[in-house]
This record gives sequence, structure tokens and C-alpha cells, in this order.
Amino acid sequence: MKTSEILKESAGDLWNKYTRHEFLQKMKDGSLDINTFRYYLIQDSKYVEIMLKSLLTASNKGPIDKVSNILSIIFETRDKGMEVHSWLLSKIGITHEEISKTGFSVSNYAYTRHLYYYATLGWDYFLASWSPCMWGYYEIGTYVKDSPNELYSKWAEFYASDEYKKRVDAILDALDSIQYREELKIPFIDSVKFEIKFWESALNRVETDIQ
Amino acid sequence: MKTSEILKESAGDLWNKYTRHEFLQKMKDGSLDINTFRYYLIQDSKYVEIMLKSLLTASNKGPIDKVSNILSIIFETRDKGMEVHSWLLSKIGITHEEISKTGFSVSNYAYTRHLYYYATLGWDYFLASWSPCMWGYYEIGTYVKDSPNELYSKWAEFYASDEYKKRVDAILDALDSIQYREELKIPFIDSVKFEIKFWESALNRVETDIQ
Repeated sequence: MKTSEILKESAGDLWNKYTRHEFLQKMKDGSLDINTFRYYLIQDSKYVEIMLKSLLTASNKGPIDKVSNILSIIFETRDKGMEVHSWLLSKIGITHEEISKTGFSVSNYAYTRHLYYYATLGWDYFLASWSPCMWGYYEIGTYVKDSPNELYSKWAEFYASDEYKKRVDAILDALDSIQYREELKIPFIDSVKFEIKFWESALNRVETDIQ
Repeated sequence: MKTSEILKESAGDLWNKYTRHEFLQKMKDGSLDINTFRYYLIQDSKYVEIMLKSLLTASNKGPIDKVSNILSIIFETRDKGMEVHSWLLSKIGITHEEISKTGFSVSNYAYTRHLYYYATLGWDYFLASWSPCMWGYYEIGTYVKDSPNELYSKWAEFYASDEYKKRVDAILDALDSIQYREELKIPFIDSVKFEIKFWESALNRVETDIQ
């Protein structure tokens, strides 16, 4: 069995809680409150910044072929991602200034520093902590993309796209080149838990008081 | 004005919320539920481990005289601290196995990775993020030490002790040798907020599902 499959299986029911969360069911049927999505999008923008920083921190600790493959695909497909992202921000009226002025929810702060922490420990740990986000969002995109709400369907179409799938394939290829070991489970499963908390924080629009 | 004083002042009312929290008022009058304290002590033990790891991570980035002074005092007074800590663990029936099996609350996880994150960024940042814990606990020890509850008074006596004060003095001496700059406020104030969340998580005994 592939390392990625063992890890996903080890998360058990949590994987489904993450990729079929109430937040996503509501995106899919179009009933998600736009202010909940707005909250999510700001937190997600803050997340991506530290996620990238963590990837770069980990990148000098991995095998150069796998790392280069991932980085080149991420940067190749970055324009497309930014295009959708900027379109969403402008549609919803979120400025970059608002994103930077808004704090992190505690769980988003914990999640981003969790990625960074594992990035300093090693490439394998980082990949295990990072893959739930990248992999899960492809499944989520496919699930949500037919939403009757244009904002939600556009958002989802990107994650369901071939471009995005290339990223996921490169990451899973790198992860599967690592021999499975027990200690990779903790970063992976904790990240799945943080993804669930990410949706929940948005649904409850919890306080964002950490800078 | 000293850098430490500017930072404390910048936290405003939050400092008081931290050092005179309901949790501490209840320790002082002896009414704090022992299971709440038990929860706290396990989380605190987990915190200290990553705090030390962060200190060591930051230690190669600071001026060698200040760093050496802090490390030598921390290790000199470590036995005394461990003695009180072990006494408390045994009185309350907490084993090291239980500490390592119990997960982190989200805010404790966020707080510990916050220290670690700043430790990788630089010594000044780390000191700013670390000092609220060390400095605040001296004030807290002094506040709580006359508690009628023996467990709480012993706990507090350590933080109110001259040995502990030496640690605080060394840290504040290092912090005050740094010229104040605006960017030190964020790590400092966020740590004060995390300290408040630490008490609140214990009072509410929130879920500890992050490894």
C-alpha cells in the first residue's frame, strides 16, 4: 500500500468529516452565508502565506528532484490560482490591506505554525503535514464544483482543475517515495483535524485576535 | 523607558487579565477545582518542553553573554523547579506517561509553536514572545503564594522564589539590552493573549486532541 493511502486510512472517519463538512455541503447546495465564506477566504489567504513559507523552509531538506518538481508545478500554476483568488476577493470586496490587518483565528494560527514547525524538522514530516490540505482540496473541488452559487462554483472549479491536480500528483508522488513510518501519522492526522477546525471556525466566525 | 516596560505597557489591560485571571483568584482563595488544576498542570508540562526547545533554537542567534547568562541560570535553578513540579505531579497522581499521551489544547499548541516560530526568526523576537510567560509567573507566584490550599501555595512559592526571580531578571536584562522597536510588540502581546487563553482552556477543560 502507498504511504499516502496508509496515512489517509489512518485518519479514519476524520477524512470524511474534513472533505464533506457541513461548510462544504452548504457551498455545494449554495446555501452558505456569504459572510461565512468571506471570513473563510480571509483566513485562507493568511494560511497560504505561511504555508508557502513553510514549503520553502522544508525545501532544502528534501530530495532535489522531488522538491524541484513540486516547486516548478506550484509556480507554473500559480497564476491560474491567483486569478481565481483575485476574482473572488474583488467580487466579495476584500482588500489585501484587510487581509493583513485581520488576525488569525487560534486554530488557523496553530495550523500554520504546525506546518512551519514540521518544515523545520524535515521534508518527510512537512510533506505528511502538508498533504491533507492539498489532497483534500482536490476532492473538495470535485464535490463542490456544480454549486448553483457562481462564487462557490468558480472557487471549486480551480481545485477540481487539471492544473491543481498536477500539484496534488507531484506531492503524492513525493510522499509515496517515502517509506511509511508510524511517526508520519501525527503530522498528517493533526492537519486533518486542523482542516476540520478551519471549517468550524468559519461557520462560527470565531475571534481572530492573534497577529 | 526600558524595552520591557514599553512592551508591558503596550499590552494594556491584557496584562492584568493574564496575571489576575479568575483561575488565579480561585487558586489564591483555594477554591480552584483540583481537576481544573490537574488539567492545567498536564498542559503546562507539555508547554515547558517546547518552550525549552524554542529557547535552545533561539540560543544560537543571540549575543553570547546574554544567552549564556540565561541558560546557566535556567539550568542552575532547574532542580528546584523540577522538585516542586515532581512533588505536584505525584500528589495529584499524574505520570509522565499520562502527560505524553495527552494531546495539546489548540491554544496551547498554537502558543508553543508560536514560541518556536519566533525562535527560528531571531533572538529578539523570541525574547519578546517568551518574556510574558517568565515575567508574568513571578507576579502570579507573589499573588497566589498565601493560598490556603497547600498544592497551590507550594506551586506559587516556587514562582515567587528568589531562584525564579533570577531567571526573570536575566531575561529582562537581555530584553532591555535590545533597543525597542514596534515589531517586538506582536510576539509579546500575542503571548499575553495566549496566557489568558491558557487559563481559560483549563477552566473550561477544552478538548486536547492535537498531538
